[in-house]
Parts: sequence; C-alpha cells; structure tokens
Amino acid sequence: MNLLILHPGQHLDSGLWRLDQRQCRHLREVLNLAPGDHCRAGEINGKLGLARIESMNDNNIEVSFNGNSEPLAPLPLNLLLALPRPKMLKRILLDAASLGVKRIVLLNSWKVDKSYWRTPNLKAQLLHEKLLLGLEQAGDTLMPELRLAPRFRPFVEDEMDDWAGAGERIVAHPGEHPPLPCALDGPATLAIGPEGGWTPFELQLLQSRGFRCHCFGSRILRVETALPALIGRLMRLP
Amino acid sequence: MNLLILHPGQHLDSGLWRLDQRQCRHLREVLNLAPGDHCRAGEINGKLGLARIESMNDNNIEVSFNGNSEPLAPLPLNLLLALPRPKMLKRILLDAASLGVKRIVLLNSWKVDKSYWRTPNLKAQLLHEKLLLGLEQAGDTLMPELRLAPRFRPFVEDEMDDWAGAGERIVAHPGEHPPLPCALDGPATLAIGPEGGWTPFELQLLQSRGFRCHCFGSRILRVETALPALIGRLMRLP
Repeated sequence: MNLLILHPGQHLDSGLWRLDQRQCRHLREVLNLAPGDHCRAGEINGKLGLARIESMNDNNIEVSFNGNSEPLAPLPLNLLLALPRPKMLKRILLDAASLGVKRIVLLNSWKVDKSYWRTPNLKAQLLHEKLLLGLEQAGDTLMPELRLAPRFRPFVEDEMDDWAGAGERIVAHPGEHPPLPCALDGPATLAIGPEGGWTPFELQLLQSRGFRCHCFGSRILRVETALPALIGRLMRLP
Repeated sequence: MNLLILHPGQHLDSGLWRLDQRQCRHLREVLNLAPGDHCRAGEINGKLGLARIESMNDNNIEVSFNGNSEPLAPLPLNLLLALPRPKMLKRILLDAASLGVKRIVLLNSWKVDKSYWRTPNLKAQLLHEKLLLGLEQAGDTLMPELRLAPRFRPFVEDEMDDWAGAGERIVAHPGEHPPLPCALDGPATLAIGPEGGWTPFELQLLQSRGFRCHCFGSRILRVETALPALIGRLMRLP
C-alpha cells in the first residue's frame, strides 16, 4: 500500500476520515505511524495529498486529509481481455490497475472454460478489491471501469465500437504479422486472447471491427506475463 | 508445459528417452496422448523437434525424439535483479525465463531483507526448476545461467564488467531521467532494484560502472509487474 485511499463512506461529519481495519493495520504495523504523523493519501477518483493522523486508539484511526495535487494521468489504453483462469484473475487485475489501465472488459472466448464464469472471484466486490490494491500499489486514485461480457459476439458486434472509441485497435497474435509497436502516441485498445489464443472466427470478427494483428515474438507467454509485457511496450512515457 | 524438455539423464541405451513422473502426468492427463502420438519436444540446451510416444504403461512413458530445428534465439538482455522477496521469486524467474532472458544475477541491496538470503527457495535445485518451467512455457530449451551475488559492492566493482560485457547498461529508476528506450537494437544489461529502490550509494556505484538511469513513468510497480513490463519494452522483435 503506497497510497492510503479514502472513500466517501469514511468521511465523518467532523471533516475527518475514519480508516477501515485493513488501513489501520497497515498504518500501525507496516508504517509504524503515530498521531501527528503523515502519509501519502488520496480520495478515490479524486486528488492526491497527505493524510495526518489526528487520533488513534485500539479500534480506530481518524485522519485529516488535504488533497492538493491531481491524480496520475490515466493510461489511454483500453484492455479487452479473454476471461483468465480464476486463480490468475486477481494478479492480472492488480497489474492492469497498477499500470494505469482504466477501462477493462473481461470477454468470453471459445477457449475460456465455461466454469470460469461461475467462479466466486467474479463477484463485483472482489473485482473491485483487486483493482483497489492496484491503485494503492501504484499511488493512483482513479478506479478503473470493469465490465464483464460473457457473450463474445454480441459484445464485439454491438458494443465494441462505442466502448473502444477512437484510436488504434491491436490484437497480439502469433504469426507473420507486423511486430507490436512501441510507445503509442494516442489512445488504443489492446485485445489479449485466452491461453491457446482466439479462434479463427473470433479473430476475424475482431478484425472486422478494426483490430490489426501484431506479433510479439515466438515465445508462448502466460497471460499474466504477456499483459505487463505488452502494456510496458505500448505505453507512452512522458 | 508447451514443450517437453528432455535431459541427458533420461536418454536410454535403446536411443529412447524415459519421461519423469511430472512429464508422464502431463502427457496423460493434460494432453491425453496415447502410443504413436506426437508432441513438441526439445533437448535441454539443444534442438527442438517432435517426440513420439513409443511405449506407455502404468509407470513409464518412453519416447523417441527427433530434434531438427534450432532453439529460439536468446534475448540479448542480462538481468541484474535485487533479490526479490521469496514468495515472488518463483514467478519472477519463471517470467524472466519465459521471456527469453539467459543471464541473471540475483544481487544484494541495502533494502533486501537479510532473511531473504536464508530462504530455502534459493536452493540451486529449486531455482533450476522455476527456470525450467519458464522454458517449458515459452517453448525454449536454453537454460538460463543464474548467479547469486550476496555482496553488492564486490560484485559490482570486481565482477560486473566481465559479467555484463558490452552493450547498454540501464537502470530503471524513478525521477527526472530520460524515458526507458524501446526495442533496443543490441545487447544490454537491465538492473532492477528492490522494493523501495537502490540506495544513493548503490545507484552511484552502478553509474560508475556505466549504468544510466531511465524512468518508466510515475507509478510505483511491484517488481514482478515491472520486470515483464520493462523487458517487453526493451526487447527487439524480429
């Protein structure tokens, strides 16, 4: 937790903010803070600044917060991701959020095991928690928008254009394609398939919606390795 | 396991290869192969080709192997990595190996907890297994060379130049530095610090050995996220 993220529900009438149990534990046990100490903080979807510990007892910590700088610039890269296997989903969402991705669709694909859609990991609250961990890690406050699209074709045919908007559309796919570009200078959408890849039908439908195939070398990567590697390549640095 | 990797110890006088238990389980239970079937295989540090199942009984599988194509080209990027926390080491080595890194030094740093050097995860056999998993994932046969350097200064002062050899030396470090370059066109060495970063002394010593600082945005990333992101950016695609 490199940033203490404050939620509206924590705001007290007094103007102070009451921390939740996880935050209390972190400030006490990891940061070893005491009343009067400061730590980096931000308001969810809002400004960054410093929190000051105003009171601390066995059960509660209350802080004041002064947000005086803008949140980090979002990464202008939408992520269209075939639903990964459940035990990797947590890491993938955390990584995507910490890298600054703000718009994510988890999409069905022929090679996504149907059971993945029934996993308890897909509960909205749990997904939200993983994204929050990514923000806390990166020092960011803007919560990504995450959608589930359990039907491939209706999403790609009817909703993709609105969702993806302007900008390049890139699908990383093995084969004789141009290499993945570096440091894009505008917004883009990146599609990452399931282990085993998109089917020819799926690829064709993505291409009919403006996606272009790019290769990323000849090694077969796990989705959780490919995702940061692809984003690290595509992202533009100031 | 996208590649069955055969070791010299598995080679029988008959010219066949006897698979170990993990390999047997994979061929039976994941790939559902039967005698006469083929799968992708390679000889450790050697050629790629196809294995054919010649016999299969309750306890053993024996395959013939015909290696007819060269292993994947190594990534010309040396990795100098502050020893990560033990529970992340496995993932990091697997990722580095699957991305094609062939030379890794795990280095001490002021901010590396001393207990990390005493963890059972650092046993040579375990490190080797993780690297092997990365090769099996990527479809590669060339085993990375991994060294432990539990003393920062002697390694950097006395051994670095020999080890790193020619090529750019890059340290990813927050601050006002030139952005991390894209798609290097020659060999290079990448230094990744511990959580919390290199100390000023360490950074200075690295710089005195030709490392140049580059920034990779203003987000604080976990080492296991940063590593594939940095490599994905630096690597040259054919």
